[in-house]
Amino acid sequence: MAEDCVVILSGGLDSTVMLYKLVGEGKMPITLTFDYGQKHCKEIEMAVRTSKLLGLRNMLLNIPLGDIFKSSSLLEGGEDIPEGHYTDENQKSTVVPNRNMILLSFAAGMAEDRQMDEVYYGAHSNDRTTYPDCRPGFIRAVSRCTQEGTYNNVRIIAPFMDWTKADIVREGVRLKVPFENTWSCYKGTDMPCGKCGTCVERREAFEIVGAIDTGVL
Amino acid sequence: MAEDCVVILSGGLDSTVMLYKLVGEGKMPITLTFDYGQKHCKEIEMAVRTSKLLGLRNMLLNIPLGDIFKSSSLLEGGEDIPEGHYTDENQKSTVVPNRNMILLSFAAGMAEDRQMDEVYYGAHSNDRTTYPDCRPGFIRAVSRCTQEGTYNNVRIIAPFMDWTKADIVREGVRLKVPFENTWSCYKGTDMPCGKCGTCVERREAFEIVGAIDTGVL
Repeated sequence: MAEDCVVILSGGLDSTVMLYKLVGEGKMPITLTFDYGQKHCKEIEMAVRTSKLLGLRNMLLNIPLGDIFKSSSLLEGGEDIPEGHYTDENQKSTVVPNRNMILLSFAAGMAEDRQMDEVYYGAHSNDRTTYPDCRPGFIRAVSRCTQEGTYNNVRIIAPFMDWTKADIVREGVRLKVPFENTWSCYKGTDMPCGKCGTCVERREAFEIVGAIDTGVL
Repeated sequence: MAEDCVVILSGGLDSTVMLYKLVGEGKMPITLTFDYGQKHCKEIEMAVRTSKLLGLRNMLLNIPLGDIFKSSSLLEGGEDIPEGHYTDENQKSTVVPNRNMILLSFAAGMAEDRQMDEVYYGAHSNDRTTYPDCRPGFIRAVSRCTQEGTYNNVRIIAPFMDWTKADIVREGVRLKVPFENTWSCYKGTDMPCGKCGTCVERREAFEIVGAIDTGVL
């Protein structure tokens, strides 16, 4: 069966659950993973592993944003990752300027190049506070933009746009997603730090659902 | 004086005239040039030269689209550049999938990273037939997208959106742009081939204006 869509797979929890959901619904994605200079490059290993487990082709693109942008703590060479809650003001330093538009524009180009018309990405409602490029207004605008700019009218679809992180964990439990094959922590350490915004958010989501996170054992 | 906007400068005629116009109006741009694997990499030399002449900082980004996209004759490794008129159906092979959105998303990220809010690019009305990512609908959508996705509400501005190539040449003559420092031909040869779509379009524009093209002497 031929591939029919592009899924941006970071190797984090959100995009991994989204991928399992899409495959469960009968989609045959090509997965697209970016090495953009993030400190938490461990997520890339996870993306490769998950694609292999599901028998999907993975493409890894090297887009060194750290060489271009100086203002983000998420990138190698940037300041330290802030600790605290995901919605705190200090989390703003983890924003990579216009990151999602950059990554989505490559994904849409790849869909256009291969005669496909759907690109999926895992933005969800908890992301909205800090990341403008995860908000509904952005998602609508970016999809309009790729439709206008391509012959195939490529659309950007964010199925979790109105879901919370807990909703995603619940869906992952239902789909039996092996959470140990996902990586959230923004720091580049061997084990999740438990203190950065995304570690805190993940722990809270599993607590709400009442599930065990096999990714932090 | 601090830089106040980003100008995408390919080194072609359109973006070069646009740059002279903006500088003449008192803008202080940083110029952004892409080595994306185009066969006509000679335009890059021109962009560097023009930036130097005008005393502007130039940033050159290496984004190897030829490694990702297989369907474009414009890229190294692709099929031969078609000859003929710029509006012919066969010119479609020169489309690089979603190219302008990719390049503009980097430019908008750079503006955001440096606390600027304007990005200029040289799309014009002759481009519309073949390139969906030069049409007014795309230009409006991409600007909406960058505004939604950034804290600085970065806008994409295409001042030549409704101009013809001849209008741009006329403006270049008025501004005394040294046309010999611009490169249009899509082929990678030493001198412009005179037969590809963009060579034909350029010659026609100079004929309409009744000016000498110092770039083909």
